[in-house]
Amino acid sequence: MATTTRDGILDRAETDTLIASDKVEGTPVHGADGKRIGKIERLMIDKYTGKVAYAVMTFGGFLGIGADYYPIPWELLDYNTELGGYQVNFTEDELKSAPKYSQYEKWDWSDRSRSQNVCDYWGVKYYWSAE
Amino acid sequence: MATTTRDGILDRAETDTLIASDKVEGTPVHGADGKRIGKIERLMIDKYTGKVAYAVMTFGGFLGIGADYYPIPWELLDYNTELGGYQVNFTEDELKSAPKYSQYEKWDWSDRSRSQNVCDYWGVKYYWSAE
Repeated sequence: MATTTRDGILDRAETDTLIASDKVEGTPVHGADGKRIGKIERLMIDKYTGKVAYAVMTFGGFLGIGADYYPIPWELLDYNTELGGYQVNFTEDELKSAPKYSQYEKWDWSDRSRSQNVCDYWGVKYYWSAE
Repeated sequence: MATTTRDGILDRAETDTLIASDKVEGTPVHGADGKRIGKIERLMIDKYTGKVAYAVMTFGGFLGIGADYYPIPWELLDYNTELGGYQVNFTEDELKSAPKYSQYEKWDWSDRSRSQNVCDYWGVKYYWSAE
């Protein structure tokens, strides 16, 4: 749900160092080969540290129906100005076997073992141990 | 623009430790006296650290026209379940004299001196020196 079409909003939605949450939501994600493989649905933010724990990426489904939701560590997303979206260094196949939940399933984010699975799969540090 | 009305989304939008960006956007903000003084428009996220630099709060205006935008450090926002929104420990008057920009003004977020003004006014550590 990018709001870049509203007058002047672009100026405030991104700078060299900062980006607006509502500019990230809805942004396409391209795989290592440049192919579009999904989009960012939302960011999950740690309430206490104010740090982005994950970006939640949707893949598959039609008009949001039947899509799967993949928690992706923030540091894996690189913005590619040519593609007009994020580019990741993994493929669609690697994404498919990543930890995910379906539209109809409750993902218990409080369960740290699920978060550990996500970090382990993607090979990143546990976000809660960073500070 | 909370999406809590979609089936089941609430389960995924908040846990004990995490909250979704699109659940924060649009959430009302109440002053120290409980009076509603505005709402959260968006979060500004540091691209490199993945940390929320500020919540941008809107105040005044009508249907978004003529509103002012106030960058508020994340740690000043406390969720109050009774009020169904964030509660801050400042008053409407204190907000009015805080650093802000208007709907028609470009806020140059890249200019660190403006960010310093925000942190100094609210008495918080510079977010970029936290790590």
